[in-house]
Amino acid sequence: MSDLLNGVFAAVLTPLDADKAPDHAAMAAHCRWLLDHGCNGLGVLGTTGEANSFTVAERIAILEALARLGIPPHVLMPGTGCCALADTVALCRAAMDLGAPGVLVLPPFYYKNVSDDGLFAAFADIVEQVGDDRLRIYLYHFPQMSGVAIGPPLIERLLKAYPGAFAGMKDSSGDLSNMIQNARAFPGFAVFSGSDEFLLPVLRAGGAGCITAVGNIAAFLAAEVLAAFQRGDEKAAEAAQERLSRVRRIVAAYPLTAALKEIIARHTGNDGWRRIRPPLSLLSPADAAALLSALERERFYPPASG
Amino acid sequence: MSDLLNGVFAAVLTPLDADKAPDHAAMAAHCRWLLDHGCNGLGVLGTTGEANSFTVAERIAILEALARLGIPPHVLMPGTGCCALADTVALCRAAMDLGAPGVLVLPPFYYKNVSDDGLFAAFADIVEQVGDDRLRIYLYHFPQMSGVAIGPPLIERLLKAYPGAFAGMKDSSGDLSNMIQNARAFPGFAVFSGSDEFLLPVLRAGGAGCITAVGNIAAFLAAEVLAAFQRGDEKAAEAAQERLSRVRRIVAAYPLTAALKEIIARHTGNDGWRRIRPPLSLLSPADAAALLSALERERFYPPASG
Repeated sequence: MSDLLNGVFAAVLTPLDADKAPDHAAMAAHCRWLLDHGCNGLGVLGTTGEANSFTVAERIAILEALARLGIPPHVLMPGTGCCALADTVALCRAAMDLGAPGVLVLPPFYYKNVSDDGLFAAFADIVEQVGDDRLRIYLYHFPQMSGVAIGPPLIERLLKAYPGAFAGMKDSSGDLSNMIQNARAFPGFAVFSGSDEFLLPVLRAGGAGCITAVGNIAAFLAAEVLAAFQRGDEKAAEAAQERLSRVRRIVAAYPLTAALKEIIARHTGNDGWRRIRPPLSLLSPADAAALLSALERERFYPPASG
Repeated sequence: MSDLLNGVFAAVLTPLDADKAPDHAAMAAHCRWLLDHGCNGLGVLGTTGEANSFTVAERIAILEALARLGIPPHVLMPGTGCCALADTVALCRAAMDLGAPGVLVLPPFYYKNVSDDGLFAAFADIVEQVGDDRLRIYLYHFPQMSGVAIGPPLIERLLKAYPGAFAGMKDSSGDLSNMIQNARAFPGFAVFSGSDEFLLPVLRAGGAGCITAVGNIAAFLAAEVLAAFQRGDEKAAEAAQERLSRVRRIVAAYPLTAALKEIIARHTGNDGWRRIRPPLSLLSPADAAALLSALERERFYPPASG
C-alpha cells in the first residue's frame, strides 16, 4: 500500500476563468509543469485547490478534463471528501474510473464534536457504498480547517475493519509528533506531511512524503530533500529542507491559496491566476508586494514555466 | 421584512427510512404536528435537520415532497447554505419556486479565518446569481458549528449593498448580547434566537422569535412565551420561559439531534425515528434512559401526536 503513492505531491491550485469557473487548460498546464519540476504526484481538489468551493459536477469535470488533457491519472490523488455521503461516493467512483490510484478523503466536516463511532460509521459507509476493492483512501487530517480530527484510535479501527482500503493519511495538523507516531504505529500506512517543513522528519520516521500547498512553487526543493534522503546524504537533505522551510515560512505568513496564486501570476505573467472563489480573497497589493519582496530577498525563483 | 416570517419555528428534524434516505411522509406528518402545536413556521433543512448530510438533490426532493404532502410553503424557511456557490443558488431557487418566503443561509463553511471581504463577496454572489427580487435571506450565525462568524459589520454592509435581500438572522451563537445588539442596531432585520432560552429576552429587544431544535418537542411552550409576551403578561411570559428553559437544558445535555429523535421515537412509538446519518450517532441506551427520566422528573410531555 505505501508504495502506491509516495514522494513529493503538490496540493494543486485550481486556476479560474473570467467567470470563476475552473480553467481546465491552465490547470493541466500547471500540472504538467509540476510533474516536470519535482512532483511525483498531484493532490488535486484539496483545500489549496478550493475543492469545496466547487460543486460535485464541477469537480468531476476537472478530473475528466485533466485526463483528457494528458495528465497521467496514475499520479493523481484527488480530494473527494464531502459532507454528504452520496457526494463523496460519487467523487470516489469518478476518480477511480479515471484511473486515480488513491483518493484523499476529508471526514464529513459540518458537524463538530462528533464521536469516533460516528466518524467510523461515516468512513465505513463510504467504503461499503463505493463497493470496489480498488478503493484506496488517504485520510485527510486537517483539524484547523475541517474542525474534525482523525486520531490514532480511529485509524486503527478502520485499518482492522477494512484491510487494504485505508492506504494512508495526509496530516495537515502541523503536529509533527502525530505524524511520526502514526508512521511508526501503522506499518504500510503511508503518512504524508501536509506541510513542507516536516518532509525530512516524516521521511526519517518511515513516512511516505508530503502533499503541500507550497509544492505549487517549490516542489523542486522538496524533491531535493527526498533525493538526498534516499541516497543517504543527510547533510544535503538537511540543507535542502532548511531552504524549503524558509520558503514555506515566507509564503505561509499569508493566506496560502491567495499567496500562491499571486506568485504564479507573476511567475507565468498570466493575470488569470489572480482569481479566487469567495470566501477566499486575493492578497492586497501591499501584501502581494511584501510577499514577493521577501521571496526576492530569499533569492527564491521557481523554475521557468514550460 | 420583519413581518415576513416571525414567531416560533422548530428547526425540524429529518426522519429517515431503513436506507437512511429521508422519510418524506414521516417528515410531513411531523411538520403538520408542529404547526398544530405551537409552530408559526418551520426551519427545515438546518443543522438539526442534518441538511449537510444530504446532497442538493436529496434536499430539493424533501422540499418538493413537503409541498406535495400539503405543508404550506409560506411557513417554510429552508436552509440553503452550502460550501459551493452553485449549490446554494440551486437550493435558494428551489425553495423560492416552491413558495418559501425566506431561506436560511450558512456562510460557506469549509474555509476558516476568512475575511469579511471574502464573506461579503460570497453572499453578494448568492444574491446576484439567484437574481430574483423575491429572495429573502436569513443569515445563519452558528460559529461553534460552521466555524465562520457573521458579525455586525458584515450585516451592515450586506443590508446597505442589497436593500431587501437580507431579511434577518438566526443566531445560534448562544451569545444573547449579540442577538440584542443586532435586533436594536438593524431595525426591520428579524433576529431569531437559535436557542429556546433566549426567546423572551430577544422578543423584548424587538427580535422576531426563535428557531430551535428543542422546538421539535416543546414549541407549544415557546408559543406560550410568545402569546404571553404579545398580550403584555410579563409574569406569565417569564413563567413559560422558565419552564421552556428547563426543558431545553435537560435535552441540551446530550447531542441535540440524537436526543430529539430518541424523544420523538418514544413519543410516537415509531422506532423509525431512531435513525441518524453519520457522522452523528444515536444516544447510547444509558443516555437515552437518563434523558427520558430527566424529562419525566420535569413532568414534560409533548402533546399527543396527530
